[in-house]
Amino acid sequence: MALDDRVKCCPAGLISDRRRRVRVLDCTIRDGGICNDWKFDRAWVKRTFDALVASGVDVMEIGYRTREGAFDRAKVGPWRFLDDEVLADVTAAGKGNLKLAAMMDVGKAEPGDLRPRSETALDVVRFATYAHQLTEARRLLDRALALGYETHMNVMAVSTLTPEQVDAFLDELRDSGVHNVAIVDSFGALYPHHVRHLVHVYQSRLGESIGVGVHTHNNQQQAFANTIAAIEAGATFVDATVHGIGRGAGNCPLELLLFYLDNPRYDVRPVLELVDEYATLRDDLRFGYHLPYAITGYYNVHPRSGIDRMKRPDRYDCRGMYESLAGRFGEGGAGE
Amino acid sequence: MALDDRVKCCPAGLISDRRRRVRVLDCTIRDGGICNDWKFDRAWVKRTFDALVASGVDVMEIGYRTREGAFDRAKVGPWRFLDDEVLADVTAAGKGNLKLAAMMDVGKAEPGDLRPRSETALDVVRFATYAHQLTEARRLLDRALALGYETHMNVMAVSTLTPEQVDAFLDELRDSGVHNVAIVDSFGALYPHHVRHLVHVYQSRLGESIGVGVHTHNNQQQAFANTIAAIEAGATFVDATVHGIGRGAGNCPLELLLFYLDNPRYDVRPVLELVDEYATLRDDLRFGYHLPYAITGYYNVHPRSGIDRMKRPDRYDCRGMYESLAGRFGEGGAGE
Repeated sequence: MALDDRVKCCPAGLISDRRRRVRVLDCTIRDGGICNDWKFDRAWVKRTFDALVASGVDVMEIGYRTREGAFDRAKVGPWRFLDDEVLADVTAAGKGNLKLAAMMDVGKAEPGDLRPRSETALDVVRFATYAHQLTEARRLLDRALALGYETHMNVMAVSTLTPEQVDAFLDELRDSGVHNVAIVDSFGALYPHHVRHLVHVYQSRLGESIGVGVHTHNNQQQAFANTIAAIEAGATFVDATVHGIGRGAGNCPLELLLFYLDNPRYDVRPVLELVDEYATLRDDLRFGYHLPYAITGYYNVHPRSGIDRMKRPDRYDCRGMYESLAGRFGEGGAGE
Repeated sequence: MALDDRVKCCPAGLISDRRRRVRVLDCTIRDGGICNDWKFDRAWVKRTFDALVASGVDVMEIGYRTREGAFDRAKVGPWRFLDDEVLADVTAAGKGNLKLAAMMDVGKAEPGDLRPRSETALDVVRFATYAHQLTEARRLLDRALALGYETHMNVMAVSTLTPEQVDAFLDELRDSGVHNVAIVDSFGALYPHHVRHLVHVYQSRLGESIGVGVHTHNNQQQAFANTIAAIEAGATFVDATVHGIGRGAGNCPLELLLFYLDNPRYDVRPVLELVDEYATLRDDLRFGYHLPYAITGYYNVHPRSGIDRMKRPDRYDCRGMYESLAGRFGEGGAGE
């Protein structure tokens, strides 16, 4: 039964066809791993991989490819380095239609960390960069393109840039050869009207041959809503994680997204099974919506002060947190 | 500092002016009380009232006016009956610009339960009705209008009606004298595209002299997003509760809404103080987003099976729940 048949009060066909064209990238292990220093055991990641293959999700971002020495291997899990023998083991039973992706952080990876595509299970490389690091990001990109990977550029914290700065990095990416560019709301600061605007800006500056995606955070309970807004505006791919796992308030929940997409290409049921496992992590890792994260999102700042606030044993003291941040921005707070 | 100055990547003025015109109705005690049979102690409700007065919120719905005998007074708190002496005590220090509202449930209230407006602290009466009860609802409405109250009609579970049924009840309300009609997403089934459509339908059928509002639930993490969608579409009032308190997945959080509205008319800080108190109820009352509520929302059914599922000691077994409901709807589930 299609979604239109469940909700009866609106005419069928009201929802945009775009929801059937968008593609889904799962970044559960990569971005969720920020919560636990990527210390998922291999059997856990295998179950996640198997479920994603079964679900029909398009891409699984399984971690980071990282320069040796950038992290202490004794202090992080293997998904921060993504050695090819680990990937070969996880994918031994076959990837089906699932593409496997690695992220590379500008400053924590070198072009030489990428091996020829024939020697790895990886299909896709995504680069996490700030706009001011784009020259360095393009060194990584050029290597990945030369080796035949599908490439994505994730320019982080776009909410902190001016419109002119956004235009400038998009213009630089237009002829870079990159296949996809994501709108990354690192701080969970955006509302749907921002996302709709940015999708149009990204698409018009980048041209038709480059895909535009969105990576959202749930600080203000807008991760899924902003993902919907991006889809309605014409985004070609969207990011999500199982149960919304991710640092602080987390990400767009994959299971809610698949409900919404209502596309026979995807089967939500294997993901629903995973949610039961990921829910067991939720209390330990403390991810998910809480008001301190909403306050950092509202102020468009890094969630670290919200994460600190959540470690307090009893009350959030959200008024104190709000007024402290308001002071940082040179005002006494609303209503004064 | 205005919101436009915090999020820099979009031009100023992108957000609709409508967010500055919309009015806010808090239903924390009335709808949140469904979680605890309205057993808030009086000091708690007074603190909530005081904070809402200080916040500039427009209306506080403080409970239900109920026919004697419809509930056992020994088993529910006083906010299910709203005796006028209780209201007089809570509001003794003055209401400021805050209007006080009571809800009346069709079938659990009689016209005689309303006293002349001069004998009560109440300013507003809202009627909770299903579309097929509208004749009975209008008996209550007529009495409230005769006594001089501001009136609202909340036609519940609109997501289960056909477009023709929606048109029919709106046509009946158009000349009823009611001041406001709310789109009520009882099951948390709607997405923003549904809400935008319904706001247009309600406004065009009801005419310009009747306000249109929205009452959302967070089953699919869309309560706040759907509230934003309603505001963008031109809704004149919206409902919210402190910390999103409400049965199951809860409601639109008032504090997030006030952040978004960014209107000097409102001061979010007194609400932020309340959140610390309401957060202490969250674990006991088990409100807030959980996947079982998303599944009932997706299937557009009452949340009771989700509430039952949440009482299980360990895992949700969301796949089993999903497949069970899929079976009820005559299908084997997605992908089959």
